[in-house]
Amino acid sequence: MKVITLGEIMLRLSTPGFDRFIQVDSFDACYGGGEANVAVSCANYGHDAYFVSKLPKHEIGQAALNALRRYGVHTDYITRGGDRVGIYYLETGASMRPSKVIYDRAHSSIAEAEPEDFDFDAIMEGADWFHWSGITPAISDKAAELTRLACEAAKRHGVTVSVDLNFRKKLWTSDKAQSIMRPLMKYVDVCIGNEEDAELCLGFKPDSDVEGGNTDAEGYKGIFKAMMKEFGFKYVVSTLRESFSATHNGWKGMIYNGSDFYVSKRYDINPIIDRVGGGDSFSGGLIHGLLTMPSQEEALEFAVAASALKQTVPGDFNMMSADEVKALAGGAANGRVQR
Amino acid sequence: MKVITLGEIMLRLSTPGFDRFIQVDSFDACYGGGEANVAVSCANYGHDAYFVSKLPKHEIGQAALNALRRYGVHTDYITRGGDRVGIYYLETGASMRPSKVIYDRAHSSIAEAEPEDFDFDAIMEGADWFHWSGITPAISDKAAELTRLACEAAKRHGVTVSVDLNFRKKLWTSDKAQSIMRPLMKYVDVCIGNEEDAELCLGFKPDSDVEGGNTDAEGYKGIFKAMMKEFGFKYVVSTLRESFSATHNGWKGMIYNGSDFYVSKRYDINPIIDRVGGGDSFSGGLIHGLLTMPSQEEALEFAVAASALKQTVPGDFNMMSADEVKALAGGAANGRVQR
Amino acid sequence: MKVITLGEIMLRLSTPGFDRFIQVDSFDACYGGGEANVAVSCANYGHDAYFVSKLPKHEIGQAALNALRRYGVHTDYITRGGDRVGIYYLETGASMRPSKVIYDRAHSSIAEAEPEDFDFDAIMEGADWFHWSGITPAISDKAAELTRLACEAAKRHGVTVSVDLNFRKKLWTSDKAQSIMRPLMKYVDVCIGNEEDAELCLGFKPDSDVEGGNTDAEGYKGIFKAMMKEFGFKYVVSTLRESFSATHNGWKGMIYNGSDFYVSKRYDINPIIDRVGGGDSFSGGLIHGLLTMPSQEEALEFAVAASALKQTVPGDFNMMSADEVKALAGGAANGRVQR
Amino acid sequence: MKVITLGEIMLRLSTPGFDRFIQVDSFDACYGGGEANVAVSCANYGHDAYFVSKLPKHEIGQAALNALRRYGVHTDYITRGGDRVGIYYLETGASMRPSKVIYDRAHSSIAEAEPEDFDFDAIMEGADWFHWSGITPAISDKAAELTRLACEAAKRHGVTVSVDLNFRKKLWTSDKAQSIMRPLMKYVDVCIGNEEDAELCLGFKPDSDVEGGNTDAEGYKGIFKAMMKEFGFKYVVSTLRESFSATHNGWKGMIYNGSDFYVSKRYDINPIIDRVGGGDSFSGGLIHGLLTMPSQEEALEFAVAASALKQTVPGDFNMMSADEVKALAGGAANGRVQR
Amino acid sequence: MKVITLGEIMLRLSTPGFDRFIQVDSFDACYGGGEANVAVSCANYGHDAYFVSKLPKHEIGQAALNALRRYGVHTDYITRGGDRVGIYYLETGASMRPSKVIYDRAHSSIAEAEPEDFDFDAIMEGADWFHWSGITPAISDKAAELTRLACEAAKRHGVTVSVDLNFRKKLWTSDKAQSIMRPLMKYVDVCIGNEEDAELCLGFKPDSDVEGGNTDAEGYKGIFKAMMKEFGFKYVVSTLRESFSATHNGWKGMIYNGSDFYVSKRYDINPIIDRVGGGDSFSGGLIHGLLTMPSQEEALEFAVAASALKQTVPGDFNMMSADEVKALAGGAANGRVQR
Amino acid sequence: MKVITLGEIMLRLSTPGFDRFIQVDSFDACYGGGEANVAVSCANYGHDAYFVSKLPKHEIGQAALNALRRYGVHTDYITRGGDRVGIYYLETGASMRPSKVIYDRAHSSIAEAEPEDFDFDAIMEGADWFHWSGITPAISDKAAELTRLACEAAKRHGVTVSVDLNFRKKLWTSDKAQSIMRPLMKYVDVCIGNEEDAELCLGFKPDSDVEGGNTDAEGYKGIFKAMMKEFGFKYVVSTLRESFSATHNGWKGMIYNGSDFYVSKRYDINPIIDRVGGGDSFSGGLIHGLLTMPSQEEALEFAVAASALKQTVPGDFNMMSADEVKALAGGAANGRVQR
Repeated sequence: MKVITLGEIMLRLSTPGFDRFIQVDSFDACYGGGEANVAVSCANYGHDAYFVSKLPKHEIGQAALNALRRYGVHTDYITRGGDRVGIYYLETGASMRPSKVIYDRAHSSIAEAEPEDFDFDAIMEGADWFHWSGITPAISDKAAELTRLACEAAKRHGVTVSVDLNFRKKLWTSDKAQSIMRPLMKYVDVCIGNEEDAELCLGFKPDSDVEGGNTDAEGYKGIFKAMMKEFGFKYVVSTLRESFSATHNGWKGMIYNGSDFYVSKRYDINPIIDRVGGGDSFSGGLIHGLLTMPSQEEALEFAVAASALKQTVPGDFNMMSADEVKALAGGAANGRVQR
Repeated sequence: MKVITLGEIMLRLSTPGFDRFIQVDSFDACYGGGEANVAVSCANYGHDAYFVSKLPKHEIGQAALNALRRYGVHTDYITRGGDRVGIYYLETGASMRPSKVIYDRAHSSIAEAEPEDFDFDAIMEGADWFHWSGITPAISDKAAELTRLACEAAKRHGVTVSVDLNFRKKLWTSDKAQSIMRPLMKYVDVCIGNEEDAELCLGFKPDSDVEGGNTDAEGYKGIFKAMMKEFGFKYVVSTLRESFSATHNGWKGMIYNGSDFYVSKRYDINPIIDRVGGGDSFSGGLIHGLLTMPSQEEALEFAVAASALKQTVPGDFNMMSADEVKALAGGAANGRVQR
Repeated sequence: MKVITLGEIMLRLSTPGFDRFIQVDSFDACYGGGEANVAVSCANYGHDAYFVSKLPKHEIGQAALNALRRYGVHTDYITRGGDRVGIYYLETGASMRPSKVIYDRAHSSIAEAEPEDFDFDAIMEGADWFHWSGITPAISDKAAELTRLACEAAKRHGVTVSVDLNFRKKLWTSDKAQSIMRPLMKYVDVCIGNEEDAELCLGFKPDSDVEGGNTDAEGYKGIFKAMMKEFGFKYVVSTLRESFSATHNGWKGMIYNGSDFYVSKRYDINPIIDRVGGGDSFSGGLIHGLLTMPSQEEALEFAVAASALKQTVPGDFNMMSADEVKALAGGAANGRVQR
Repeated sequence: MKVITLGEIMLRLSTPGFDRFIQVDSFDACYGGGEANVAVSCANYGHDAYFVSKLPKHEIGQAALNALRRYGVHTDYITRGGDRVGIYYLETGASMRPSKVIYDRAHSSIAEAEPEDFDFDAIMEGADWFHWSGITPAISDKAAELTRLACEAAKRHGVTVSVDLNFRKKLWTSDKAQSIMRPLMKYVDVCIGNEEDAELCLGFKPDSDVEGGNTDAEGYKGIFKAMMKEFGFKYVVSTLRESFSATHNGWKGMIYNGSDFYVSKRYDINPIIDRVGGGDSFSGGLIHGLLTMPSQEEALEFAVAASALKQTVPGDFNMMSADEVKALAGGAANGRVQR
Repeated sequence: MKVITLGEIMLRLSTPGFDRFIQVDSFDACYGGGEANVAVSCANYGHDAYFVSKLPKHEIGQAALNALRRYGVHTDYITRGGDRVGIYYLETGASMRPSKVIYDRAHSSIAEAEPEDFDFDAIMEGADWFHWSGITPAISDKAAELTRLACEAAKRHGVTVSVDLNFRKKLWTSDKAQSIMRPLMKYVDVCIGNEEDAELCLGFKPDSDVEGGNTDAEGYKGIFKAMMKEFGFKYVVSTLRESFSATHNGWKGMIYNGSDFYVSKRYDINPIIDRVGGGDSFSGGLIHGLLTMPSQEEALEFAVAASALKQTVPGDFNMMSADEVKALAGGAANGRVQR
Repeated sequence: MKVITLGEIMLRLSTPGFDRFIQVDSFDACYGGGEANVAVSCANYGHDAYFVSKLPKHEIGQAALNALRRYGVHTDYITRGGDRVGIYYLETGASMRPSKVIYDRAHSSIAEAEPEDFDFDAIMEGADWFHWSGITPAISDKAAELTRLACEAAKRHGVTVSVDLNFRKKLWTSDKAQSIMRPLMKYVDVCIGNEEDAELCLGFKPDSDVEGGNTDAEGYKGIFKAMMKEFGFKYVVSTLRESFSATHNGWKGMIYNGSDFYVSKRYDINPIIDRVGGGDSFSGGLIHGLLTMPSQEEALEFAVAASALKQTVPGDFNMMSADEVKALAGGAANGRVQR
């Protein structure tokens, strides 16, 4: 099916192994970003995934585009121009030492893109799903405007719209976020976000202490109901992460379709190899699940298994096939060698 | 002592770190294979270990031979010729993501070797031990014939023979395996293999669910007795692996000499660095133990400690000295720095 | 503040990843050594840290000096001359396989330095703290003499003196150690060392089995009191390590000021990335704590948090800022990504 | 324009730097092969390039496919199935030490592909150019049959056909080559090949000693005329390499359209970074030139500049844009930094 | 002596070996920039070199600062703040393929620094030399203002001022450059720049075709005289590069003190390892020469030898000691191993 | 044939690529040393080569031994014990920047070995050739004594003895060298050494300026005659190196059998990949040539070709087969790819 995502793809510069930023004389380089990661997941599952963005004409822009192409994402809707590819630096933590991200993404091509860079009606024509995250409108006012235009076009073409709220405090304040995000919710069918996102992006007061790693599924139910009531979502969904350390997390998810709550199996991820992109692979798995599976339960289990697996692989992108995800969702978690 | 092993040594191409096959632009390269790994273990423990195989004359064949030579294995009985070194690709898993092996070993020099490539009487002359695994006869009909000839020569020269059943479903079916393996058991003194191997290679019905990671030593006893009764082995031995995840296993072993069962200490291997070759290092340790130690208990404890240590080291080969193995078997498991 | 440390900085040659010495064809190279590591910690916390040593004039000597300079340590008191930079080879263990260190440090420039290589009065002029460890006098008789001269000068200038007892059996016997160390204790204000060190360097009989990983804080109290009584220390301090495996330790500390014992929070370090330098980062944190914080409790918590974090980073040096250490000491141990 | 190529894409395993095969414990890995390389060149120049082949379903097959996709080659006509990806090992020479290639390509998926794996009429529909090389029919009799079928379909659809004769003595004899290649020449419009190829694939006796590095353009004219006369080609083309050492070559080309001979500028390539794929990048440049430029002179200059540049870049693929090639063909050979 | 330089230090991300930007999945990382490079050269020669700039407080900023500190540059005058470290991407060419630089330096901390970030009177107090290049004022209008303020302070304190004209067309036009640079020339004592720089920064018409690699020293004399006449420089100096290819250059220099022209020895650099920073190492060598040597001839020979050697070392910084430079300037160019 | 060499094998730590010592954070590690290198050459050519030395029992000693074993050298006569493996640090030059070696070899196991560590009669029993170099007696007085004992045993057993004079100024003075070396010459049959060695080790005054790279074969003849006259050698041999730069040398050799002088073909080595071990590979080739070829001319051509090839390969050891050397000696110097 035709799946559209809109956002930024950045150059990720990560230190080798567990080295700190100030130790290294090389960086591992890959490309990633919330919506690009979702597009790769969907391509892996066999969909015609299109990533919509803008990239400079120079070779670093080309390399970002090639990264998408390599994993089967269609790049027809990527406009070329502007000055720079946004960057994020990543240092991978261990035990009680947290991973660190330094963003250097201001003034990227997509942050300074204009509405005329994209023909959203052509893009949404024949599409089945459109996904974006709260990062895209947070990049810049121009990008917020693009998001609105894309949502409108999606609705004109009858495309299902999902959002991953994904609040980023380095990009905007909660007040700014709410002023932009709340009006966009009317276009959204599937809303993904944890309590913290719900509070900071949409103004819903959390019931429990998420910061402390306390992720009681029960405590989410009130917010889910309130969100659905106010915005009329078809589904409200969240991952539930227990942070024991930088390399050991518990991981599960919850979905609500307005009548039933379903909490998935819980995975103990130990060691985590790379947790960046975990949420994006959840969104990608959920889109695949809701597009192709008969129940919200199956869709959620697929999404949770997909995102647990992502966190065992380096890089932003989820390198898993649908068969591999299904094997885990079906119970094959003992890690025996596949010969 | 003179220890002979017969089999294939392959080029192993593994992805760096935890990368997946489709991410990498380099492979770590080493050489390994069940019986070659056993030979290296025996050389490490001070034996005159000889590996019997066939390798091409080109440099990749030479590099495989050099890998053995580097670790002290005698290569006098390696015939040069044929077209290719078999390959296996390895991707190392983590947490719930399993390791993956892709074999590309058909048409290797040893798979197409002829009886006249080897003078088994010269090879077995003066030997103390001959070890092979179920992989060797599974490679090809020609290799199965070589295995038979080697076993016959071993018996002619009074050499103790051990086998690691090691069923590989990519190489043959259970029916084919049984048709080849059962007639070879009459040459065998020491039979190593878990329940699954016993069923698929020899047709013994397992008592418990090994696939699920459930390795109840108790459940093995019946099969061990039956195996010994039918084939007259001196020892039946098995490792008992609990697979919690790709990077966390429990590990112990069991041995039976026809009168007593002995179950070893259990090791909690977490993290596993490289589990490939774990079984081979067990066989190597067992051979050393049975050749040099007064009791099956000591031999088994040495074998289990050796193979637990192997799984903390990258590569197929076990890089442990007898002293290091003995230190662990003797209780030094706290991992304090050796300065 | 001006902090002085005296000792050796070595070239550290460590095998990549978890490879064993006999597998590798490259070494990761960095520079480190007990007192140099302490100097780097202090520089990270904003102090004017000076490392006192001797290094050859050639480029390996220069590289060692540059490593200190890179992390902000003043190198004004490093004399250039002599023949070699001491080396230690490091192999990193995993699970039940211990890390291994091979020392090749005899005949280094500092081991053969003469008193006239240093003007200790100039060095101690205006200094606030002088730290050394039991390794320095163990290197050679000449280095022991330098240690004594430095301690005397420190006392002349009213500098607080700390020692990390740090017994190394490859460098000297317990008898030799006691003959050198006991007379030096009269210069010491803060004595850091576990039970084993206290026994081997100073002759205090331990109460509990530290070798077995049993580190009962209660059992240390008697020794702490006896040490303080005999030598008149202001503080006696120790780390308490529980060694579960090479990659999993428990970690806490205890301090005693003559009236109160305080045991810190306990950290579960799993996985350990690099435990070398753990004790040094503890000393560095303690110096910073005692120099700048109002209570021994805060100083100890800072020291323990600092040294727990060190063990999550490759290399001898502690790459942590005071803010990062305080965040952990303040409770932020869940390892959530810092964006 | 739509450009089709048919052939094999292999996994290339090359030793790092100038290491020999027997020294290394890693291989640089990329994917390449004559016709795949041509497809990448054409994609770089903006054409819709399609590579036709067969690859296994496993991840190594997928990685080969992804390599093409990454650089913009369409993979719609790649059939999935069969057992293995062919391999070639590469050791890069220097000075008087030649580079070495060890092939391990027998039994690859494309070597064992069947006619029904491809719908050549669909493939050639709307195509502008079809390119193959003498390697494709040399792989196996099945692949030779596929080549014939592809040529026939190309002719049915009015597609221009080019061949790079590319004799490989490890794959077939000259007699076998002539028996297969000569009948295929009737489909060919543009024939690329040096004297040696012309002799060994087609039976034309060379006039000069090419093996000795003596590549006198004058001496080629007789053969070019004879080839055109016998087979009715539109163009006969050859590169002219002077081999001074493994890292220093002279490089130019010659083209003949039946009336005029044209010899290109000569480039002095020193150092050569990677000469593998030099001929393929020449073919790719020539196809682009003949498709888009007004004269054979311009087409040849583009092809020669493209292939000179290729030899300054690691890997099989030519990583050059049309603008970069044109800059060199236009005279910008002084290598000043492009800022 | 106290040497001051003012400018930007960037993160340099270069592709390994000769790989192109679109091939790589890692970057070698170091830090560099015109005036930082000059500071490192001066520190290598034993001067108290201070680099004046602004860097963000985050770890990438710290790493840039540490790079300077490692090589002995004083960082007391580096202000911390602002958003980003400028970046440049580097791809190293070979033979006829040129190296490529992509700049991503807009909005760096120094580009947005304010006059109050620096106390130029304190900086210039006691200084012997102040060096800047045409890149600094080209970064931004704010940086141009800083340059002017620094020059004024230098003159107030009687500091010798040198400039490397260094026109960069990606940063400004020739018109803009002239409007900024010409008024600054009144502060300058030593002007370094080739004909192209002299034309584009100062408006002097060149006599010969420098772009074509034609660097006839004779042709420079007229411009040198005119420059000195107009601006009253004490010295006008230029490097003279012959660009044969990306990896082979000729290299010499010329100096004029108002009465005598002197042309240095010529070096044939083949292969060039890294030509970035060649001009900066020339400036650094020249400053050292003019500060410490009796004649302009010796100063120039030192500068040319220093910069020839720089081009044989990876990275922006010149890693040469004064002794090594003198050895080459003295004639030791045969490259025999120094044991 | 049985070939014996006596000397030291060191750990070689070289910087990657063209990096300088002070830039790196890793070292490439291999093992080598004059006589070990000769042993590897002889093993490559099919001889039973034995290296006689002493190595510590620890893993670095084992790794050195394994390096020899890997390339087929017999290690039966290597005694284990002592404290350290000698080290040399290597930085590879380019163009006019020379390579640099820093030795850290004092106090190695072989330098402190005792006569009773070796049974030279057993070693020389049945041997055909014994080779040593001037480095061995220069290491220490003990090693000089070992050299004498080995020479005496060789003579007792009728073994041909060759020496490579190889003067090293860091190890001894010319006076010391002459006092040790001259008395040893009576055991020598084949003397290898250039003019500089002849002067510094044996006291023969050179006729030409070798230091300046001037290696006129004619000028050697007088010294060769004088050497043969005084010491009664069967052959006097020398390499003749023209040093144009660190990466470009001319290379040839000269031999004299008392009646005829023969000067070999000259090779232009450009680029040199690694010149360390060039002389040793010459000695190895010469031994093979004199042992197996009918004339001194053929032996010399083999030796020169072998050593030219060595300089195109990284590492101390010569990785060439006899066939590869013969191909070059036979004229195949154009570097065309061997497929």
